[in-house]
Amino acid sequence: MFTPRAIGFVRSAYNKTTEIPKGLGAKHEAEGVLEILREFEVGLTDIEGFSHLIVIWVFDRSEGFELLGTPPSDNRPHGVFATRSPRRPNPIGLTVVELLRRDGLLLHVRGVDMLDGTPILDIKPYLSSIPEEVLRRGWLAEAEARQSE
Amino acid sequence: MFTPRAIGFVRSAYNKTTEIPKGLGAKHEAEGVLEILREFEVGLTDIEGFSHLIVIWVFDRSEGFELLGTPPSDNRPHGVFATRSPRRPNPIGLTVVELLRRDGLLLHVRGVDMLDGTPILDIKPYLSSIPEEVLRRGWLAEAEARQSE
Repeated sequence: MFTPRAIGFVRSAYNKTTEIPKGLGAKHEAEGVLEILREFEVGLTDIEGFSHLIVIWVFDRSEGFELLGTPPSDNRPHGVFATRSPRRPNPIGLTVVELLRRDGLLLHVRGVDMLDGTPILDIKPYLSSIPEEVLRRGWLAEAEARQSE
Repeated sequence: MFTPRAIGFVRSAYNKTTEIPKGLGAKHEAEGVLEILREFEVGLTDIEGFSHLIVIWVFDRSEGFELLGTPPSDNRPHGVFATRSPRRPNPIGLTVVELLRRDGLLLHVRGVDMLDGTPILDIKPYLSSIPEEVLRRGWLAEAEARQSE
C-alpha cells in the first residue's frame, strides 16, 4: 500500500459538518479554495484548461466506519458503498468541483462540500459524463420519488 | 491521516500495463469483476440499484511520482494533476464502471482499466453528470484536435 500525504488543503466556509447542505435536493454551490502545497506546484501545469476537477480528499474528522447506515437523504439503511457516508473503511471523500480560476497555488472552485482544513490527496481532470438517460441512481431515486409523493 | 486497506481486489484480463488501451480514443469496454472481501459484504447492500459506480483503487505497481509528464494522449508534458498518470504523489486511481450484475461478493462490471489484482480502496455510487455543453477538457481536447487535423 502507500502512506497518504496531503498535497494541499481545502479552504471553505464550513467549520462544522452540520453547516454543509445534505440530503435530497442539497445544492453544492459554495465557493472555496484548494490551496496546494508549494512542493507540488509544478503538478498544476495546464490545469487551467479544465472546467471541472475531481478532488479526492480525507474525511479527517470522521472516526471508524459503519457498513450499514441511514443517510440524510432517506429513512432506510443502505450499504456504505451505496452511499457517500463519511464513515467508510477508507475515509476517502470525492467531490467534483468547477474550476473558476487559478491563482498560483490557489485553485478557486465552486461546489465545495468539504470542511475548512480538509486534506487533499489528489486532483484529477474530469473527462467524461455518463449520459442522463443511461444513469440509474438506485435507492436515491426511490427516496426522491417517495418524498415528492 | 489513515492507513489504506483493501476492501477487495480487481479481477481483470490485464496482467501488464501495456495491455490496457491508452491514449486518445481509448475505449474501456473490458469486463471484469470487483471481488469484495467477505468482511465488507454488508457494505454492498442496495448497490445493485446503481448503473454506474466510482471505483477508487491503488496503482500498486507504480513507483514514485513525476509532477510533469507526457501522457500517451499527447506529445507535450502536463502537470500530474491535469492527467491520469499513475505516477502521482498519492498513487490513487479512479475508474467509473458500469455495474452489470452482483453475485454475492462479486460485482461484475464493464469499463475496467485496472490490472488484475489491483487493490480496491472504496466504491461510491455515481450520482450525477456534468452536461457535455459545460465541460471543458483542456489540453486533451487540444491534443485530439491536433491529431484529427
